[in-house]
Amino acid sequence: MGAIFPVIWHGDRVHLIDQTRLPAAYELKEIRTSAEMATAIRTMIVRGAPAIGVAAAFGMVLGAQEYSGSDRASFLAHLEAVATDLRQTRPTAVNLFWAIDRMLSAAQAETATIEALKDHLLATAQAIASEDVATCQAIGQHGLAALPSTPEKLRLLTHCNAGALATAGYGTALGVVRSAWRANRLERVYADETRPRLQGAKLTAWECVQEGIPVTLLADTMAAHCMQRGMIDAVVVGADRIALNGDTANKIGTYSVALAAQAHDIPFFVAAPLSTIDTKIHTGAEIPIEERHPQEIYQVGFTRIAPAGVDFYNPAFDVTPAHLITGIITELGVFAPADLARGIGAA
Amino acid sequence: MGAIFPVIWHGDRVHLIDQTRLPAAYELKEIRTSAEMATAIRTMIVRGAPAIGVAAAFGMVLGAQEYSGSDRASFLAHLEAVATDLRQTRPTAVNLFWAIDRMLSAAQAETATIEALKDHLLATAQAIASEDVATCQAIGQHGLAALPSTPEKLRLLTHCNAGALATAGYGTALGVVRSAWRANRLERVYADETRPRLQGAKLTAWECVQEGIPVTLLADTMAAHCMQRGMIDAVVVGADRIALNGDTANKIGTYSVALAAQAHDIPFFVAAPLSTIDTKIHTGAEIPIEERHPQEIYQVGFTRIAPAGVDFYNPAFDVTPAHLITGIITELGVFAPADLARGIGAA
Repeated sequence: MGAIFPVIWHGDRVHLIDQTRLPAAYELKEIRTSAEMATAIRTMIVRGAPAIGVAAAFGMVLGAQEYSGSDRASFLAHLEAVATDLRQTRPTAVNLFWAIDRMLSAAQAETATIEALKDHLLATAQAIASEDVATCQAIGQHGLAALPSTPEKLRLLTHCNAGALATAGYGTALGVVRSAWRANRLERVYADETRPRLQGAKLTAWECVQEGIPVTLLADTMAAHCMQRGMIDAVVVGADRIALNGDTANKIGTYSVALAAQAHDIPFFVAAPLSTIDTKIHTGAEIPIEERHPQEIYQVGFTRIAPAGVDFYNPAFDVTPAHLITGIITELGVFAPADLARGIGAA
Repeated sequence: MGAIFPVIWHGDRVHLIDQTRLPAAYELKEIRTSAEMATAIRTMIVRGAPAIGVAAAFGMVLGAQEYSGSDRASFLAHLEAVATDLRQTRPTAVNLFWAIDRMLSAAQAETATIEALKDHLLATAQAIASEDVATCQAIGQHGLAALPSTPEKLRLLTHCNAGALATAGYGTALGVVRSAWRANRLERVYADETRPRLQGAKLTAWECVQEGIPVTLLADTMAAHCMQRGMIDAVVVGADRIALNGDTANKIGTYSVALAAQAHDIPFFVAAPLSTIDTKIHTGAEIPIEERHPQEIYQVGFTRIAPAGVDFYNPAFDVTPAHLITGIITELGVFAPADLARGIGAA
């Protein structure tokens, strides 16, 4: 089945699938230090909210390895510094902060030797990774059950890449697609190419081809037209941060797809682990939106597509308001946005 | 002011601005035969509904030149054959068919010698071109009057290129932008890059830079987010064909922008000459939608962005239903879609 694992621990280092090189090349990038991991997250060698969380957890393990002393307080101070560096890589995906906090808690809870603390941190990072795969598979099953019962073979639309590459494996939105495919309920997935970084064209399309899932690539301009033509039965996307009211930050363009889905009465699902829910914020207005370098817009490969003298705006995410979301698919089941806080016990 | 004329007659041939080379290079392409003109339209060296009409009219002039006999009936048969070739270049823009029909009527109405007929055809093509510039300027003035009265300096969003390059000069949607700029009512124009062919990035951005109009380039995924953030005061787009009920075919992605505008109560204007209205059809469902080669999606410059094994769907246009359109800006004034047929005397 061509399982894809974007973050793999190898004894004393991490191998990342270099997602900036796909689909032209499948290359593993060796990460030996926490600083290298921070760079890999910032430059999107690894991306996708849950995968960033897993990568940051292993970044903390690498950071722990870099400490050679035996003083517990200075070890914890060192870990805090590593955490600060890792937190500054990407501002929107909350899984990054969640994973780092869990690693810091693991370090603080344990009272053994520094070596035992390091072992405990590694075990915690590995648990985060393996839990994430299990979480994605649960999301896939809950999502499959929530998809429309007709037609028998569904045409699903997704945006960006919320696949195995965006998680520890299997995927969230693409996990639902995989579960539908394996249950013989999938006719085809339509993938938005997802400008500016083209994660749909480069990553989602690549993952689907690896597994033999029929995939039609669209420019982002085409999704609403496809809905108007009756070509789409449901939409499934991932999330980078979900507010308690269900407002969802996800890759730029998700909001546009959600508006189009509503206009055509097409169910619009968000698939994400509970770690994507930020219980500290109440609405999407509080979610910080990362802005990235304009080169992502004006240059594709070696081609500059715009003239000099133009200004650019390059927000990496947008916020889809809860009222456009049919259901949020988590590892505990599917919640209507209004039921989310109660469902996860945060209300 | 850097006036831009994409189609220029030069005694016995046509110079086209090669729009496939912009913004990297400004090159004129010499067109000497009707067959060359058909190829230029098909390959989008010239594009934009009104510009296609003007180019086709001069294509008919070139076709007339190719006839060396003196028999009126065979001359008209030859022109019909040229018309058939030109009609097969692009299926959606109705201005193409309108201009060709006007040229054929001009040839049929005149009863003089072949040479006089040829002169009359040239005069008719030149009239189509000069009328189009005047039409665009009238559209610009009517559009300016219809724009929101506050704020004083407007932030306008446009999609694709409905500029000077898409007309005989000045532009339709970008004509409204130009009129607002010259009247000191424009803060900035936001241009969707408009995948797959990137006419916004390559052509609209280029035109704005030529005239010093402040322009911010966006990926198509970003328009709805900008509206949500209160960055857009009105939307102005062009049209390739308008049905009698006001349903409007325009570049793929227009529909998505219209849905987002409606969700944010932002006025959404279509700017087009009356020749874009197809009085033979009643709703947008009757408008044929051109599908183009998937290479437009999977290749940008020299870079292939998607893996092998993927399917593609590449519709070049979509239909925005009349209920999403605030007003249709024509050379005769601005009509609500429901008033369009009566306004143009077709009801």
